Amino acid sequence: MKRTHHCGQLTKSDLGASVSLAGWVDSIRDHGGILFIDLRDRKGITQVKFDPQDDAALGAAAAQLKPESVIAISGTVAPRPEGTANASLPTGEVEINATALELLNLSDTPPFPLDDVGGDRVNEDLRLTYRYLDLRRPKMRKNLEVRHRTTKAIRDYFDSQEFIEVETPALFKSTPEGAREYLVPSRIHPGQFYALSQSPQQFKQILMVAGVEKYFQIARCFRDEDLRADRQMEFTQVDVEASFVTREDIYALFEGMLKKVWREVLGTDIPTPFPRLPFIDAMNRYGSDKPDTRFGLELADFTALFKTSDFKVFAATAASGGAIKAINVKGLADITQGELKSLEDAAKALGAKGLAFIKVEGGEWKSPIVKFLSEGERAELATRLALEDGDIVFFAAAEWERACAILGRVRLDAAQLLIKRGKLTLRDDDWRFLWVVDFPLMTYDEERGGYAATHHPFTAPVPEDAGLLESDPRAVRGQHYDIVLNGVELGGGSIRIHQPALQKQVFEDVLKIPADVVESRFGYMLKALTYGAPPHGGIAFGLDRIVALLCGTQSIRDVIAFPKTQRGQDLMAQSPTPVTPKQLKELHIGITDPAL
Amino acid sequence: MKRTHHCGQLTKSDLGASVSLAGWVDSIRDHGGILFIDLRDRKGITQVKFDPQDDAALGAAAAQLKPESVIAISGTVAPRPEGTANASLPTGEVEINATALELLNLSDTPPFPLDDVGGDRVNEDLRLTYRYLDLRRPKMRKNLEVRHRTTKAIRDYFDSQEFIEVETPALFKSTPEGAREYLVPSRIHPGQFYALSQSPQQFKQILMVAGVEKYFQIARCFRDEDLRADRQMEFTQVDVEASFVTREDIYALFEGMLKKVWREVLGTDIPTPFPRLPFIDAMNRYGSDKPDTRFGLELADFTALFKTSDFKVFAATAASGGAIKAINVKGLADITQGELKSLEDAAKALGAKGLAFIKVEGGEWKSPIVKFLSEGERAELATRLALEDGDIVFFAAAEWERACAILGRVRLDAAQLLIKRGKLTLRDDDWRFLWVVDFPLMTYDEERGGYAATHHPFTAPVPEDAGLLESDPRAVRGQHYDIVLNGVELGGGSIRIHQPALQKQVFEDVLKIPADVVESRFGYMLKALTYGAPPHGGIAFGLDRIVALLCGTQSIRDVIAFPKTQRGQDLMAQSPTPVTPKQLKELHIGITDPAL
Repeated sequence: MKRTHHCGQLTKSDLGASVSLAGWVDSIRDHGGILFIDLRDRKGITQVKFDPQDDAALGAAAAQLKPESVIAISGTVAPRPEGTANASLPTGEVEINATALELLNLSDTPPFPLDDVGGDRVNEDLRLTYRYLDLRRPKMRKNLEVRHRTTKAIRDYFDSQEFIEVETPALFKSTPEGAREYLVPSRIHPGQFYALSQSPQQFKQILMVAGVEKYFQIARCFRDEDLRADRQMEFTQVDVEASFVTREDIYALFEGMLKKVWREVLGTDIPTPFPRLPFIDAMNRYGSDKPDTRFGLELADFTALFKTSDFKVFAATAASGGAIKAINVKGLADITQGELKSLEDAAKALGAKGLAFIKVEGGEWKSPIVKFLSEGERAELATRLALEDGDIVFFAAAEWERACAILGRVRLDAAQLLIKRGKLTLRDDDWRFLWVVDFPLMTYDEERGGYAATHHPFTAPVPEDAGLLESDPRAVRGQHYDIVLNGVELGGGSIRIHQPALQKQVFEDVLKIPADVVESRFGYMLKALTYGAPPHGGIAFGLDRIVALLCGTQSIRDVIAFPKTQRGQDLMAQSPTPVTPKQLKELHIGITDPAL
Repeated sequence: MKRTHHCGQLTKSDLGASVSLAGWVDSIRDHGGILFIDLRDRKGITQVKFDPQDDAALGAAAAQLKPESVIAISGTVAPRPEGTANASLPTGEVEINATALELLNLSDTPPFPLDDVGGDRVNEDLRLTYRYLDLRRPKMRKNLEVRHRTTKAIRDYFDSQEFIEVETPALFKSTPEGAREYLVPSRIHPGQFYALSQSPQQFKQILMVAGVEKYFQIARCFRDEDLRADRQMEFTQVDVEASFVTREDIYALFEGMLKKVWREVLGTDIPTPFPRLPFIDAMNRYGSDKPDTRFGLELADFTALFKTSDFKVFAATAASGGAIKAINVKGLADITQGELKSLEDAAKALGAKGLAFIKVEGGEWKSPIVKFLSEGERAELATRLALEDGDIVFFAAAEWERACAILGRVRLDAAQLLIKRGKLTLRDDDWRFLWVVDFPLMTYDEERGGYAATHHPFTAPVPEDAGLLESDPRAVRGQHYDIVLNGVELGGGSIRIHQPALQKQVFEDVLKIPADVVESRFGYMLKALTYGAPPHGGIAFGLDRIVALLCGTQSIRDVIAFPKTQRGQDLMAQSPTPVTPKQLKELHIGITDPAL
């Protein structure tokens, strides 16, 4: 019995046709001895009717079926009786009067319901163990399709822009100073290891030296990080690099790509160009380098005001070069003690000593700190924060970046509290893209007592700042850019250093990497730059995360066919596992006591 | 100076235009003080003229340039003087009178010539060490582009057929009984390992159980095999699986894909459907399951003839169930002793005791064995092999498959000798695709004393043979198919087993895998089959090899941007390497003495 149609296809225009369908038994209903089976395939559902009065044997065979069994049927397309049409299905006006049934495979009873609502209630471990059933759920099937359409749109776009996709190796070289990497022991070279590529960064720059000019790749990358909710051991990166380009070229290129993806996948037109926000402004206004700009609740700066304050905590911070920041959360004066405690805990986790606040209720300022404030200070707060009854203001006093980050966290958490109260609405489809730019090239690492590259050591300084590289690295802006959507960092990139002398200066004189380490890790890149490297730059972003946003799901595990758990386990195939002594011996390695 | 055009673009229709170009100095020629620079980018070459009489400083700056340096120039498009046009270049009728020059990066002198001919003469290790220079050579650049266009065409094709691309994990589970795999130690699970996926086989079958119905992926795969000339540690596989399909559906699907690729990449129309050749016929006629059918030189069978021969060697082989095969290489009677020795060595490497032959020269049969042959035997050989003066016949007497394989090898080597003599021509663009079908499902492993799956244990038997699975496994044909092009196996696949009981029977009763091993390795697959697995099948083929054929190169290393050597080394980045004790400790492993 060969399929003639799929299960989302037949309508009234096919009445009377002889058809064959194949798929899964979605449900079975018995109406007075007549069986109605919803037959499902990846395109839809068609109702199939088995009437024992027409064919007793066939009816008996159908009665044996269980949900999720695989069958093929033949029959004739008939109209559903008056009043029984299902308007929510494209095939809802017809049914098939079955004349033949082939059982292709029985199914045991699934361990959880395969509809969207029922499946969502199930423990995720169970879903991952039976991923082949979980993926039958409509929303999961749709997620896989959205992922396919997204990658297709991306590839079509870059192809239309004359970029070529080049595959770079997964088995790369260990660079222990970066993020933790997966090692792969070599059988042929005892005691030596490959590392799984964390990103094609070095290869894509080498491709620019090779004259490829326009490269992209949808590449698998690997990072042995402690897995948070939104991380996976292996993830997929859309990786792009081009020669003879400026930051403006990359912005335009990428805006074009996102426009195409949103149009093709969601049918939505997103306006371009995207706004740009310097890093300093992002921190000052939103307390984050990946701000969610769907709502205001902006931070305000009161450092100058409190410099000479009688409130010693603020004054001391301001005097020692720190910052005093405040945020007015309008309408949250009804915050509960528990909620307040949560906000305070979140602030403390970021290094705050506490979370000073002022509530305005019944015309009064209620706050443990209000007694320390002068008339003038109160007046300026009231004016600049536009304080009204029902508001609550939070303060942070700390080193500038930390003070911003603390209130950035408070801002996000307070927004959730407003949403809970119905005082704020954030729509998933309110797409607020923006570029965050002008990051500092270097960040001072207090602990280690030296500079680290904010992005990575290949990022070029803004040309007019390059002279300060050694005298005042902190003041040098990098030609780096991040793309942010609704509080999520989608990706980032930079114009790279293409001059060998500058690259060597950054490695050795700014980052203070010993010359022999530079040579063993990056010697080949420095060498490549001496053979006619063009100016180049690029970008990379996480495909998993962008697909999750397109699918409207919080978890990237929902858009990866076979994700691992946060403990790095494949619950379905049962991995990782111990291996045989023979395998270890061939690889010249042994297991050491985990307690060592 | 922002590029206005690329270097393959300007023609006479642009005369007088002010333009800016950027790229690499391909060559510099000095004609009486006037410098002509061929400026190259990925699109072509444009001649740029620096006349010191127009601008002395500019001329002096240009004189400092070295080949492969990166520059940007501005100037005016002018016609080349009468008689100096270069018809081989699209831009050959014009040149740019330079008015500005920006040096973007100097280049050291490359360690080898970057043209096709010069570069081909260079040691491959040097090319791999400086891969960024090697990839600048026109043929290598073209290879990368062909690879991109091939993958694009493949993805467009499957998308148009409503297949969706699904990414499956690279970090999979160790299955030590298969090909040797790369292991990845787990940090979180001490003493446990992932294995890098050798193929998405199990995941793609699981996706069929999940109801995806039409899956494809261009997937990176990993095999720790001893690397032959045409193997790489990591390779790229085009992987396809579909539900509710027959072998015929897969043939048609794949023929359509290859047709599209050949048309889009080469502009060639390949005729479909492809011929099909049962495995037995392929062996009997060509001595190979991947025959090159661009030429004849078919094998003939004389087992029956020699069964009662006085030539004991042949008679004994025939009597014990073996086969006597012969091949007439027309026109190779002038074979040299050295060539004959090579053929014999190749035959012996496949298990032949020697290589019996008969030359026909000057009307005489010259051969050490001719004295053992009867009049009747000679007559039948002469007739059936159409023996003529100048021919040479080779014989193999051995177990059937081995006899075929020996003469299959002789056939290929003899063809090369005929080509050398100008007596045979094989064109690279004479595309002879064919399906080899009806493979035996199981192969008896003499050494181990048991059956092994010819393809893999998931291949379904031909339905009418399934009853013989336990009584006579040798007689069961598998629903397996290979696609072969000009002697190269491009890929293969099969209809899979979708019935859990049959799959269990194959594992345990035919392959005799202990039940506990089946459970630990494949338990999850057997379980998945119990939840409504549809009939399904698919195919996989090596992308690297197909791109190599499209590029007309013998080595897959020429179509991989960054291949490893046959010793598994990345000569450019220098990998593998030793790692730090800290890294090993985190992974709970240690290096064992290689001598152990």
